[in-house]
Amino acid sequence: MYYYDPAEREAKQLAPGILARTFWGEHMLAAVVDLDAHTELPKHSHYHEQLGIVIRGEIEFNIDGQVQRLGPGRVYVIPGGVEHSARTFAEPVQVMDVFSPVREEYKE
Amino acid sequence: MYYYDPAEREAKQLAPGILARTFWGEHMLAAVVDLDAHTELPKHSHYHEQLGIVIRGEIEFNIDGQVQRLGPGRVYVIPGGVEHSARTFAEPVQVMDVFSPVREEYKE
Repeated sequence: MYYYDPAEREAKQLAPGILARTFWGEHMLAAVVDLDAHTELPKHSHYHEQLGIVIRGEIEFNIDGQVQRLGPGRVYVIPGGVEHSARTFAEPVQVMDVFSPVREEYKE
Repeated sequence: MYYYDPAEREAKQLAPGILARTFWGEHMLAAVVDLDAHTELPKHSHYHEQLGIVIRGEIEFNIDGQVQRLGPGRVYVIPGGVEHSARTFAEPVQVMDVFSPVREEYKE
């Protein structure tokens, strides 16, 4: 009951070319997110705090107008309510995002 | 202010051979944790919920008596108050752990 394998989890499509597999407790929901090459997550915001790490590939974030391209191992923290978007380049990308409180709409 | 590089972050030693680099918001604290080969994180618990993902290497968790060896990409969710320990084998391991609420003692 404590262990999960994203490969066995049904994916949710967050946007075209962006799939999330989610896991949650009481206070947090984690999303292992796979983004195709040349994909864009449009600007949005949510009251949930979000933080994450890049696992594979290079992704550009725009958080509140601050733009950075991040490679594997880089970490980002997005306060609740702050607008953000992201886009990928020539290669697919995987990130792990965590939200608190739990994003109820991301539960299966 | 939203972007962090663990390579530029001072490490905290959680146990011999186990280093954490931490990042936090209001609701969550993330720890990029590097464990040496043949290392053990002794059994412990905390009221904070914890979830994480294995980034590199293979690590065995014991969560509430349930033992599993996890490779890259595997996810775990540890409810607050539940005892857990971990150990590594022949290779170093990196995981990303996230705690909610923030573990104040893990802030720099």
